[in-house]
Amino acid sequence: MTKAEFPTTQPLATPALGEPYLLTPGPLTTSKATKEAMLRDWGSWDGAFNQVTAEVRQKLLGMAGVEDDSFACVPLQGSGSYSVEAALATATPRDGKALVLMNGAYGQRATKTLEYLGRAFITLDKGDYLPPQPEEVDALLKANPDVTNVFVVHCETSSGILNPLREIADVVKAHGKSLIIDAMSSFGAVPLTVNEIAFDVVVSSANKCIEGIPGFGFVIIRRSVLEAAKGRANSLSLDLFEQWAYMERTGQWRFTPPTHSVVAFHKALEQHSDEGGVHGRLARYTRNRDVLVAGMRELGFKTLLEDRWLSPIITTFFSPEHPNFDFTRFYEELKARQFIIYPGKLTVAESFRIGCIGQIDEYIVHQLLRAIADSLVAMDVDMFKPAA
Amino acid sequence: MTKAEFPTTQPLATPALGEPYLLTPGPLTTSKATKEAMLRDWGSWDGAFNQVTAEVRQKLLGMAGVEDDSFACVPLQGSGSYSVEAALATATPRDGKALVLMNGAYGQRATKTLEYLGRAFITLDKGDYLPPQPEEVDALLKANPDVTNVFVVHCETSSGILNPLREIADVVKAHGKSLIIDAMSSFGAVPLTVNEIAFDVVVSSANKCIEGIPGFGFVIIRRSVLEAAKGRANSLSLDLFEQWAYMERTGQWRFTPPTHSVVAFHKALEQHSDEGGVHGRLARYTRNRDVLVAGMRELGFKTLLEDRWLSPIITTFFSPEHPNFDFTRFYEELKARQFIIYPGKLTVAESFRIGCIGQIDEYIVHQLLRAIADSLVAMDVDMFKPAA
Repeated sequence: MTKAEFPTTQPLATPALGEPYLLTPGPLTTSKATKEAMLRDWGSWDGAFNQVTAEVRQKLLGMAGVEDDSFACVPLQGSGSYSVEAALATATPRDGKALVLMNGAYGQRATKTLEYLGRAFITLDKGDYLPPQPEEVDALLKANPDVTNVFVVHCETSSGILNPLREIADVVKAHGKSLIIDAMSSFGAVPLTVNEIAFDVVVSSANKCIEGIPGFGFVIIRRSVLEAAKGRANSLSLDLFEQWAYMERTGQWRFTPPTHSVVAFHKALEQHSDEGGVHGRLARYTRNRDVLVAGMRELGFKTLLEDRWLSPIITTFFSPEHPNFDFTRFYEELKARQFIIYPGKLTVAESFRIGCIGQIDEYIVHQLLRAIADSLVAMDVDMFKPAA
Repeated sequence: MTKAEFPTTQPLATPALGEPYLLTPGPLTTSKATKEAMLRDWGSWDGAFNQVTAEVRQKLLGMAGVEDDSFACVPLQGSGSYSVEAALATATPRDGKALVLMNGAYGQRATKTLEYLGRAFITLDKGDYLPPQPEEVDALLKANPDVTNVFVVHCETSSGILNPLREIADVVKAHGKSLIIDAMSSFGAVPLTVNEIAFDVVVSSANKCIEGIPGFGFVIIRRSVLEAAKGRANSLSLDLFEQWAYMERTGQWRFTPPTHSVVAFHKALEQHSDEGGVHGRLARYTRNRDVLVAGMRELGFKTLLEDRWLSPIITTFFSPEHPNFDFTRFYEELKARQFIIYPGKLTVAESFRIGCIGQIDEYIVHQLLRAIADSLVAMDVDMFKPAA
């Protein structure tokens, strides 16, 4: 096996003793400053906390390139999927019909959500990892003029693919339909601004590329869409219109907010800005991915996707066909070396995933590669030699 | 004005410099150890985190006096109201009918939730603060044999009343109906065990009497009720049956959990046990309330409720009729003295609320009383003398 050269420079952040790096799609390894922001309790009714919420909402709108009051940002308690559900229930009229572009678990989850909501939908199902093509979307919209909304996942983390968002958005716009983007794992690291991509709704969450801790998601939504949605929700808790109306009226969250998570996110946004915003973060994650993919290929691993579809968020690698390779063992070997990776989600082949997001830099990725090389030795897996 | 004697003993916990004590129904002042548990990141898929979740679920069942597998504990991301919604959707059949006992905001919220869910219901509405009487419940259940579920709020924090739960539970049991208890602000501090109170469902949340930080709620539910509820939910995110089934199968949360909040809660449970469990906590909160009520009466304030209905959770005081008294000013004076109190929620009279829960003890309550006395002087409110 060829050994790669590993730099010895100090890493970006050192977790607490024994704490592993999380090379996953989130929850992530976050900065010490972000976590330390949680060492204080906040009254959820108090003006000081309302100010934090207002600043968070304003900064997220800015990140989406919103410069006027045509869009609102509505944070919502719960995991990111709660925000997706709330967005689908808000943006899809009760008698509307959604076109769901599927190439992985999160597109599939959107169809399940629509079933619960009792909203009609059709799908473009590309299987495990093939990108939905703009011309396919165009054909489907031509054939189904009753479609009101198109749902697309920006980065589908089940494969790690970065879908061709701009091309799809252009087609949806040409048909005059409403675009809902699940930008859960991309927002804050892959540029997505309203003047470049014509959208009505973007959904993301605290514990992804902005590197906060989990507890809430947020929806950036065209105000006219929101205003048309009064009474449209199926759930009191997930009623995005009411969440927004209450927040506008009082400055407070409608129900108890995850105060510590919100304050940590506020701190994380400061660091995001200090790093150069979306472009700075994209640069670091891209370096992470480039070092990761090059190093893994050097070790004999193969990526699921061609280079042009690889996101800077998470990468899927095929499990080696070597008889000694076993994912559970590999996971534990890496965990013993202080790295947590993520299982695969493909139906076609054994695979695993490694994330590039969170407080991780290329030096940590080099350490990871060394840990992977060591784990392979421990498992007696040499991909360049047939098994004994 | 009569001045009370204040002890000078060191308080239970000292918040960070400038950080106020939260004398509210939650989020609360939590311990340093609980917050410090959040200074680490956890992989939500990892075995170590699954172990934390399993221990939390087990301890909560123990707190409810469950000794066999007839009940399950299902934690759910989001605020406590999300868990109430999930519980109502799970326990009330789609063609069922609920009787909602209302004497404040949380009973009212349950009826709103049922409207969203499309479930039939009737109400016993006692207004702002009068307790629902067992004989009234009995009469309503006799007159409405099609009622399937009864919903009651244990401690209605909008007034601070502790409703007569046991007597109501006995009536509901005698009629063979299913009882859903919103024990949001009481569970962990007011005894509620399955052998004393016949319930099917109890709902509470992380940031109340167990003194965790917000991020999730939990439902303790009879397993047969849960098993009958497959396909009954109106929301993917709030589908308690699926949340439970997934957790049982994998040990993991179905969607991204609020990892830091869960780990903080685990730490808070340790401290709850160290304090003597439910009875230890009840003793401290009761002392807090007794010192508070006695001290406030000495200052000239009046409680909304007679002593027999006062909960050890939160107490409502009438705003003085003195012309110089203004709640906003009073709030700010107290905040400047490092105490955050809570506004009132009565329709009948001006009032405010002071919580007795969280990392607060009688010495801190004495400090609060001194701050209140000082604030009244600053506002030139002397309740024992007519205004000049």
